Amino acid sequence: MKIAILGCGTVGSGACKLLIQNASEIAKRAGEEIVIKKVLARTPKKAYDAGLDKSQICTSFEEILNDDEISLVIEAMGGIDFAYDCIIKSMEKGKNVITANKDLIAIKGKEIFETAERNNVDIMFEASVGGGIPVIGVIKNMLCGNKFSYIMGILNGTTNYILTKMDKERLSYDEALAEAMALGYAEPDPTADVEGLDPARKIAILASLGFNAICTLDEVYSEGITKIESSDIDIAKHYGYVIKLVALAKEKNGEIVLFVRPVFIPKSHPLASVNDSFNAVVIKADAIDEMMLYGRGAGSLPTASSIVGDVMAIAKNISTKTTGKDPYKFYNTKKVVSVNSIDSNFVVRLDIADEPNSLANVTKAFAKENISIKTILQPIKEENQASNLIIITHKTKEKNIESAVQKLQNSECVRKVKMFMCFDSIDDI
Amino acid sequence: MKIAILGCGTVGSGACKLLIQNASEIAKRAGEEIVIKKVLARTPKKAYDAGLDKSQICTSFEEILNDDEISLVIEAMGGIDFAYDCIIKSMEKGKNVITANKDLIAIKGKEIFETAERNNVDIMFEASVGGGIPVIGVIKNMLCGNKFSYIMGILNGTTNYILTKMDKERLSYDEALAEAMALGYAEPDPTADVEGLDPARKIAILASLGFNAICTLDEVYSEGITKIESSDIDIAKHYGYVIKLVALAKEKNGEIVLFVRPVFIPKSHPLASVNDSFNAVVIKADAIDEMMLYGRGAGSLPTASSIVGDVMAIAKNISTKTTGKDPYKFYNTKKVVSVNSIDSNFVVRLDIADEPNSLANVTKAFAKENISIKTILQPIKEENQASNLIIITHKTKEKNIESAVQKLQNSECVRKVKMFMCFDSIDDI
Ligand SMILES: NC(=O)c1ccc[n+]([C@@H]2O[C@H](COP(=O)([O-])OP(=O)(O)OC[C@H]3O[C@@H](n4cnc5c(N)ncnc54)[C@H](OP(=O)(O)O)[C@@H]3O)[C@@H](O)[C@H]2O)c1
Ligand SMILES: NC(=O)c1ccc[n+]([C@@H]2O[C@H](COP(=O)([O-])OP(=O)(O)OC[C@H]3O[C@@H](n4cnc5c(N)ncnc54)[C@H](OP(=O)(O)O)[C@@H]3O)[C@@H](O)[C@H]2O)c1
Repeated sequence: MKIAILGCGTVGSGACKLLIQNASEIAKRAGEEIVIKKVLARTPKKAYDAGLDKSQICTSFEEILNDDEISLVIEAMGGIDFAYDCIIKSMEKGKNVITANKDLIAIKGKEIFETAERNNVDIMFEASVGGGIPVIGVIKNMLCGNKFSYIMGILNGTTNYILTKMDKERLSYDEALAEAMALGYAEPDPTADVEGLDPARKIAILASLGFNAICTLDEVYSEGITKIESSDIDIAKHYGYVIKLVALAKEKNGEIVLFVRPVFIPKSHPLASVNDSFNAVVIKADAIDEMMLYGRGAGSLPTASSIVGDVMAIAKNISTKTTGKDPYKFYNTKKVVSVNSIDSNFVVRLDIADEPNSLANVTKAFAKENISIKTILQPIKEENQASNLIIITHKTKEKNIESAVQKLQNSECVRKVKMFMCFDSIDDI
Repeated sequence: MKIAILGCGTVGSGACKLLIQNASEIAKRAGEEIVIKKVLARTPKKAYDAGLDKSQICTSFEEILNDDEISLVIEAMGGIDFAYDCIIKSMEKGKNVITANKDLIAIKGKEIFETAERNNVDIMFEASVGGGIPVIGVIKNMLCGNKFSYIMGILNGTTNYILTKMDKERLSYDEALAEAMALGYAEPDPTADVEGLDPARKIAILASLGFNAICTLDEVYSEGITKIESSDIDIAKHYGYVIKLVALAKEKNGEIVLFVRPVFIPKSHPLASVNDSFNAVVIKADAIDEMMLYGRGAGSLPTASSIVGDVMAIAKNISTKTTGKDPYKFYNTKKVVSVNSIDSNFVVRLDIADEPNSLANVTKAFAKENISIKTILQPIKEENQASNLIIITHKTKEKNIESAVQKLQNSECVRKVKMFMCFDSIDDI
């Protein structure tokens, strides 16, 4: 089987290296050799470094598109327009496609899947979520007997690295970010990571597969980690929690909640000990109960592992002439509901006015919205500091808290508010 | 697609229930209805309880065998002879087979795989290892671009439950076993669990798939948990370890080590926090680095989830007329080497003679075998108790320790010895 790879950066070069380094094992498992015929490389040096020779490197996509020997194209460039164009054109030429491009799948998934179906080709994208963790195949194929309740994950290595450093080494957010950048975990522009956009794309993809209903990026509420202070981490620690940037897709009675946000997670929960740049996904479903997949969520070779897994599946389909026979099924129409209507415990931090009545006003306002308080803590105030109040609520909806806080702010009793969802027990979600 | 299920106990009834309860979701995902045409049930009540009606229940395997509409047979009876017979005959009649029977696959895998290939049918057995954890598919398909270094797991829920209770609630082995039996975790005859036979079968299966070389049960060294005392658990705790019954398949330069045995695992290792009846598998391979799968390793519905996953894969192959086209590949001939030649740290407990020279004799004997000692502890002796010595070694081979201890026993300096492998860091294995 002859294949082409578009882009020879982190992911593309990893795919080349892995296909070369394990060529004989892969050929025996696939029952045939996988030949890298062409690699579209804008910077040829990267392709040489990945072990390719001159005859394999090309600089025009048309050369690949018009090569009828190439039956599979792997898109590893990233970006939207050109990548989309290459994918669609490849499929229209009868070529199967693998992509690592979560941005594209989370935005243009529908068009891409439909084009694949129309042209009887396979489209696979295991590498787009969870790097080396084969979560897409597990959800789509292996757990297909289950009804999923939720898929919850730590899906971004950069932010998990930052939060781990803030927690374990008491670094500030800026210090931890600087370290992540120095180590190459964070991109030169880390916005997509730290603002939660990257995990939002990934959870949109997992939700689409688990709930058999296309979910797009714009349906995911997303909040990043830029506002997390060391004092938040301290509060979490004090109460036995860890703060993690959690991506969640949850279904209940046909309604889906989709979000990425920092969450207080109990120390005993499996996700709480997922540290550094590791990723993990917890899946809750009716037959399996609870399952977790844990591993390297990014990086050259881990991501390449997922690509090669897809290559082998497509190789089998090509050899049995069954490509395009197992399309993604989005037969459900589900309603994405607002994140503030989900039932959960919350941690609320309030800067309250320095008046004797403040505390009473706050508790009254909460009671009025039927929010019942589990613990309340008023740390001893240091000089010139605002009076800080930390409330952990019993299960309620965020909109109830928002409404209570709104009224307190109107009456100038509360000046600043910060709120975290808090998964007190796994059943909360 | 019409299927039959042999046996309607824990696993068989779970498969029935899941196929009934999620029928509409499963039909949409599979693209066709999955119809349970016949269930071989020795105790019809169990079949009724699983939601089947009279027309589906049968008491003769021949009825299923001779029904040409049935294209898939699920074996969920357990045992060797009759189950083997049913599987082989079904395949010879052109029927595809799914089995949950690890005993059979670990002993007769080769014959079963060959019969499947000869008859162009699929044989799948995801349910046989790890219950609801899809570890077989992950190793065989999704990670097929990797060279595996090791597969290491907690693969038996009963023994993990017992060890967890001994650790967390300080129960004795007998108390914890009694509790496991009362809860139905342990079989009426718990031998296969507590002696490590059950996880030995499972690791033989995983090793066969990961290393593409058939490994059978008799090649797995296996040691159970019956000799673990509360004092062993205390020692582990004291030094920051947890004792787990670990199944390991490790490859190095074409040599495989296969064992099941209690191991001291550092508290920080992902496997150390796998508690109660949960199972987990850690996979180390060249592209993914490290990965863990965690979930319910047994039980009716979790195991059924794996069976239904296999059903859907086979349904797809039947509909595209491609059954038997993806046989298991055992192209490697690997050498299984003795467990006592693996490099590891060890925890050695010695009852030494109550003489002033004993300690010196022990350290001399260890030095003579080039075993370097990391820590040595001589707990204060209580009256009438044997003098106890606890040694943690640096990396060495078990056979070196055996040889040192042998000589000490000959000279009557050491009376009793107990030895545990100790995975000081993940790189030890
Ligand atoms: N990095 C990861 O761990 C990871 C994990 C999972 C998924 N992904 C996804 O994989 C994709 C690639 O990511 P990456 O990390 O490999 O990025 P990268 O290192 O920047 O690599 C992208 C490569 O594509 C090349 N390229 C871009 N546009 C091109 C064009 N028009 N013609 C030819 N070559 C072009 C770039 O060439 P130059 O070198 O000349 O710029 C670069 O080498 C993205 O969609 C990303 O989201 C990445
Ligand atoms: N239990 C688990 O969690 C689990 C998980 C993974 C794999 N497995 C494997 O799955 C298999 C079944 O285990 P299980 O736990 O379901 O055992 P089980 O509850 O004892 O069920 C076995 C069933 O098969 C029936 N049966 C046995 N021989 C038969 C025969 N000749 N004709 C008709 N029916 C027959 C039994 O009938 P009676 O009721 O009349 O005795 C029983 O209902 C075993 O291979 C086991 O290793 C089990």
